Amino acid sequence: MSDIVFNHATVRERADMLSFLRLSAERGLETVSIWGDEIAKVGEANALAALRDHGMKVAGYNRIGPFGPGYLDRAEEELERAARFAPDHVFLFTGGLAEGERGLTAARRRVEDQVSRLLEMARRIGVKLAIEPLHPMLAGDRSVITSLTAANDLCDILGHGIGVVVDVYHLWWDERLGAEILRAGRAGRLLGFHVNDWLLPTRHLLTDRGMMGDGIIELASIDDMMRRAGFRGAVEVEIFSTDWWARDPAEVMDVAIARCRHIFGAKNS
Amino acid sequence: MSDIVFNHATVRERADMLSFLRLSAERGLETVSIWGDEIAKVGEANALAALRDHGMKVAGYNRIGPFGPGYLDRAEEELERAARFAPDHVFLFTGGLAEGERGLTAARRRVEDQVSRLLEMARRIGVKLAIEPLHPMLAGDRSVITSLTAANDLCDILGHGIGVVVDVYHLWWDERLGAEILRAGRAGRLLGFHVNDWLLPTRHLLTDRGMMGDGIIELASIDDMMRRAGFRGAVEVEIFSTDWWARDPAEVMDVAIARCRHIFGAKNS
Repeated sequence: MSDIVFNHATVRERADMLSFLRLSAERGLETVSIWGDEIAKVGEANALAALRDHGMKVAGYNRIGPFGPGYLDRAEEELERAARFAPDHVFLFTGGLAEGERGLTAARRRVEDQVSRLLEMARRIGVKLAIEPLHPMLAGDRSVITSLTAANDLCDILGHGIGVVVDVYHLWWDERLGAEILRAGRAGRLLGFHVNDWLLPTRHLLTDRGMMGDGIIELASIDDMMRRAGFRGAVEVEIFSTDWWARDPAEVMDVAIARCRHIFGAKNS
Repeated sequence: MSDIVFNHATVRERADMLSFLRLSAERGLETVSIWGDEIAKVGEANALAALRDHGMKVAGYNRIGPFGPGYLDRAEEELERAARFAPDHVFLFTGGLAEGERGLTAARRRVEDQVSRLLEMARRIGVKLAIEPLHPMLAGDRSVITSLTAANDLCDILGHGIGVVVDVYHLWWDERLGAEILRAGRAGRLLGFHVNDWLLPTRHLLTDRGMMGDGIIELASIDDMMRRAGFRGAVEVEIFSTDWWARDPAEVMDVAIARCRHIFGAKNS
């Protein structure tokens, strides 16, 4: 049985970080994924104290990016804050094309160079970076890394200290998924497994993700790919959805836990 | 200089097929791409007579599908109607998951089998089939073939009488695009080149495509890939957009022609 982790984004509209940690602890969860901007809202000292009081660990820290002008200075500060939360991994959020930049090919080359610089910085600070390939529909404005193949290729070039996170929402359509998950597993770089679902119809490119089981993604089959590739980590619930954001956070988490138990055989305690 | 072809869908909301043919002829265009449902609206005899009167050829005929229950009977009728319009190619529109079908992998296997049956039928009737891979965001409900790689793989299996159409909107994000266009070119199966643009932000998954030059796709670079792969055909303007549909069809076509001349060096007469 794998553990369940919630990403704070799933309930962020109605639960600040302190409430989110309490709700997670009440459900027997031992790990959470968090956001820098949500830490800032409640104060870093309070956030750290709450984690300590609940005896809770951090899986993913969101996030370094987007890679705009001056990103390196901001990244250093963000990586240092991340390090104080001792996360398993810190997400890179490349952003899309830069202002005035024309062409995805050029943007991809730029981003590869930037990730390489960030990796040097992260190694020095002592945190591990995570590339989460996003859906191709977000290539223009959210991430120029839109397949696990591209993420694996980049990790191959960069060496240690960086890995990948598989989010079913972004990658479920890709015929190469099983092979690329296996490739990542063999390279020891499978850092996380984000779950949610693809709804039919999907009404918005960013904020209409579904609860696991409400959509059409072969979740159990992708879970199986992860396990066969040697992944022993948690399933992390990350749902960006105006519908679920509007509901009671406790209810959202209870529904998600029940779905994770049913679909993934995952456990919360 | 390549020719310009309009796909009727670009102006269909305000120009029926007869108006569309007249508008195309007035602009010195010699070829159009058409839709079965639009033929039905004006009557097949009228549509055929108008094409003949304008001395106009048909590039793409839309379309066979979606592959629901009873699709083979309907497909035969549609292929026969298509044949009467002597198109260069007839589009396959696979649709997404079938009612109650769970899992993209199963749907892809089903569709491959269905395309194989359709191809036998198309060969007998004497029309060429075209696979147009759609964007991964449409994998659930529009097409289970979401990359040029998958389309090439399927064509490799099926043999003669079937090829691919490259639509920049669906494929621009794919790192493999150049290589897969070349692969299709070498196999002699590049049947068409659809142009439009990806807008930032994109507000709708189906009906918010941009006019060439208004978005972020490297159009000239993809055109270059097509030419280097030996494609000598037209650029076909296909824009599904509530914004452009609301405008005067003549104006839409004039803007698109100007953009095609500028970006692709294409000509209308």
